[in-house]
Amino acid sequence: QTSVQVTGLVDTYVGSLKYSGDSARTSVVDSGGMTTSWIGFKGTEDLGGGLSAKFNLTSFFRSNTGATGRFDGNETMFSRDANVGLVGSFGAISLGRDLAPNFLPSILFNPFGDSFKLSPLILHMDVPWFNASGWTNSVAGDTGWSNEIIYTTPDFSGLKANFHYQFGEVAGNTGKNNIGANILYFHGPLALTAYYQRVQVNNPLELSPGNVQPATNIPLPSGMVAARQSSWFLGATYDFTIAKLFATYDQTSHDIDLKDKTFQLGTSIPLGQGAILASWADTKRSGAAVGESLKRDTASLGYDYNLSKRTDLYAVYMYDKITDQTVGSSVALGIRHRF
Amino acid sequence: QTSVQVTGLVDTYVGSLKYSGDSARTSVVDSGGMTTSWIGFKGTEDLGGGLSAKFNLTSFFRSNTGATGRFDGNETMFSRDANVGLVGSFGAISLGRDLAPNFLPSILFNPFGDSFKLSPLILHMDVPWFNASGWTNSVAGDTGWSNEIIYTTPDFSGLKANFHYQFGEVAGNTGKNNIGANILYFHGPLALTAYYQRVQVNNPLELSPGNVQPATNIPLPSGMVAARQSSWFLGATYDFTIAKLFATYDQTSHDIDLKDKTFQLGTSIPLGQGAILASWADTKRSGAAVGESLKRDTASLGYDYNLSKRTDLYAVYMYDKITDQTVGSSVALGIRHRF
Amino acid sequence: QTSVQVTGLVDTYVGSLKYSGDSARTSVVDSGGMTTSWIGFKGTEDLGGGLSAKFNLTSFFRSNTGATGRFDGNETMFSRDANVGLVGSFGAISLGRDLAPNFLPSILFNPFGDSFKLSPLILHMDVPWFNASGWTNSVAGDTGWSNEIIYTTPDFSGLKANFHYQFGEVAGNTGKNNIGANILYFHGPLALTAYYQRVQVNNPLELSPGNVQPATNIPLPSGMVAARQSSWFLGATYDFTIAKLFATYDQTSHDIDLKDKTFQLGTSIPLGQGAILASWADTKRSGAAVGESLKRDTASLGYDYNLSKRTDLYAVYMYDKITDQTVGSSVALGIRHRF
Repeated sequence: QTSVQVTGLVDTYVGSLKYSGDSARTSVVDSGGMTTSWIGFKGTEDLGGGLSAKFNLTSFFRSNTGATGRFDGNETMFSRDANVGLVGSFGAISLGRDLAPNFLPSILFNPFGDSFKLSPLILHMDVPWFNASGWTNSVAGDTGWSNEIIYTTPDFSGLKANFHYQFGEVAGNTGKNNIGANILYFHGPLALTAYYQRVQVNNPLELSPGNVQPATNIPLPSGMVAARQSSWFLGATYDFTIAKLFATYDQTSHDIDLKDKTFQLGTSIPLGQGAILASWADTKRSGAAVGESLKRDTASLGYDYNLSKRTDLYAVYMYDKITDQTVGSSVALGIRHRF
Repeated sequence: QTSVQVTGLVDTYVGSLKYSGDSARTSVVDSGGMTTSWIGFKGTEDLGGGLSAKFNLTSFFRSNTGATGRFDGNETMFSRDANVGLVGSFGAISLGRDLAPNFLPSILFNPFGDSFKLSPLILHMDVPWFNASGWTNSVAGDTGWSNEIIYTTPDFSGLKANFHYQFGEVAGNTGKNNIGANILYFHGPLALTAYYQRVQVNNPLELSPGNVQPATNIPLPSGMVAARQSSWFLGATYDFTIAKLFATYDQTSHDIDLKDKTFQLGTSIPLGQGAILASWADTKRSGAAVGESLKRDTASLGYDYNLSKRTDLYAVYMYDKITDQTVGSSVALGIRHRF
Repeated sequence: QTSVQVTGLVDTYVGSLKYSGDSARTSVVDSGGMTTSWIGFKGTEDLGGGLSAKFNLTSFFRSNTGATGRFDGNETMFSRDANVGLVGSFGAISLGRDLAPNFLPSILFNPFGDSFKLSPLILHMDVPWFNASGWTNSVAGDTGWSNEIIYTTPDFSGLKANFHYQFGEVAGNTGKNNIGANILYFHGPLALTAYYQRVQVNNPLELSPGNVQPATNIPLPSGMVAARQSSWFLGATYDFTIAKLFATYDQTSHDIDLKDKTFQLGTSIPLGQGAILASWADTKRSGAAVGESLKRDTASLGYDYNLSKRTDLYAVYMYDKITDQTVGSSVALGIRHRF
């Protein structure tokens, strides 16, 4: 049994944080400035004939306190990945807890990757919100789905698609489920992506069935609850060598009158042993569920310096503004180490 | 420090489940169709003179959501194993959380092993029950005991015995404890086993002291609570090469008027790169604590196909019927991968 | 990714325990007789030029039940260590959850090390107390701090210092934090240490902000709550070869009228493949917050026998007495295995 790999990433920063809606700054040592810290176990087994088995068991954790998960409350130990599957000439099949359709398009097409703390796009799409602003993540159902089957196509000259199905696991009701798909295309300097998903089940655990937003979120001002959300997303990057450009657009709609529209523009500019990173995301939230339309603008500017292939240091400034809320501005200085 | 091994098993299936007492079917991606998924750390150290030290730290987890444990509520991180001990010519001593006397006899003498989902015998003996039927596991105190000392004899020509003692850890009361023993005999095509145990303490954590059934179980219709359970078990297998036959009988009694009697018959028939598996368990539950006598019959039929020594695929059909309850019938299609 | 090491320690004992204030003895299988059981992941990466990156992710666990953490309630998964940092000619910087200033001085200058069960000094300083005596740990804020920055100096001919800062992470208030420093000096048979710390934030999680004692502790008889504690400590050991002597003195003061003064004397005497260990700690607790002054005297005597460099057996007797409480006396027989 030598076929298991222990692997992960620790990302910790010192920062002074003020998000839009906060009345005061907070000085922190915090986790996941550039990538959510994680640790886990992975393996593959060659079954012969081009077939192999693979598994992933990975956990998020907070490197400032040692707590597991990204947030308190609604997480499982292996909420990052808990899946097993087969890979062959037919593509790949995965069973268990795995990526949601929205995840790869969102993190591969913005320059701050999967930073839940400093990537404007990920902040708008995925971060449940706790401060007085009442703002919540626009994309429902989490970045990973439990009780899921994923079929991944083989790679067709740089083009790949993933088809996702999450069982709702309601007795006598197979109509409650999550479905979605994404495509990813990589060709020389160009990359394109799109996803569509329809969410009726929340994750990692469905604490409040019939509400696609996490139970820990601040309720909508109208008191309305969304039981279904559809979202779609388009993204493109082009690498001009002196700079890589990023652009995304996504939109959500619900079974209640609530719509989010988000665009994001970004760039990464190689400089020395690292790169300058910049990204701006703008979300317009409208519909009777929120009353007055809201707008959130978040922009981050940083420099990521590579000490090695596995370890980098980063410095990021982030601006954040939501309609009628205080202006946020944050700085973070961190270290990220892969193992 | 190269003396630790990371090892485990991921078992995930897609199924349509209806247990006796369920009013409707549920479609699921679920964990542990053939073996409860687990991961952990093990090691041994040669101390010289035939003596060695060993430790086990292993966790159950649910490969469909990434949650730890077999069930919600009453589990510890290393509820599968958390022990350290010495092995020598005298046999072996283990301290900590380790197997209960009932575990090895029950899983080695039915063709579906330790499947908490599809093995009729394990379903009857060990699975706390949550559906409307009110049925609960017949054997109390869990398949693993905490705060335990196990003494294992040396192997005498295929015969081995384990002696188990769990401290009740009640101040001023050493009379509250669990005790038990089992024997295992392997000789050519024949294997025999027996266990006896007397349980007064629940596990993994004793959430409701004085109740040997887990606190999460549905109370007995009479409202009675059992504070002590005795159980014994006999099992045999014989391998006729074209088929291996399995037979077990076990019985429980309590400090209240409640008795379970279970027999199980099974077979595994090698076929191609795998085996056909079949098992039938019948439990009769009687006594004033349940009122009218109840009977549960569960039968499973499946095929287990080996992709390699470490990875197999399985398909299982299970029938389930409890007195006065709806008929259950379930199908499961899964993959099990050892690492 | 071969740069991660899985390592840890399992320590389990069989004992009969009676602490001062207990009305009866309890027979147990328990964890951490000599060292708190733990498991974790560590790594270092050579970055060139004398610089390296390092990380630690380690968990306490209870080897008798498999539960994580040292205690129930207020623990994180990686409450022993969750940090990442850089080491170079300048010394070392660590970010995250790491040692408190009090930890190394306390465990390196008493013969029972970091035994939370049998070391008189550690019992007095660090063990939150649950029995009827109402006694609580004298040193607040835990032995590890979250949200921390540590700067460690280079080694100056055996002299090293650590500077600790824990962010309080209160919005608009950077005045709430923990600070401290320690020095460690090793020179031939002599070792010296000192620490000072001022604690305003509890750990691992600050469940009751504004109270530097853990929320799970028994409140002071006066109902007073301390929001700030200062403590300092001096320690020395001298190895006379036939015996090593240990002596420590520490003192705490608070923003309420409450003072603890503790001295500890100890010795370890090599004998055969092991050593005789003895230690005595005396704490005087006074101030209006407790009313009548209290005194606690705890003494342990044991023999630690090495089966190998990694595995030892131990037998320890401990006496314990708090003013006006029953006399405690405990015995423990255990095995400790490093991996």
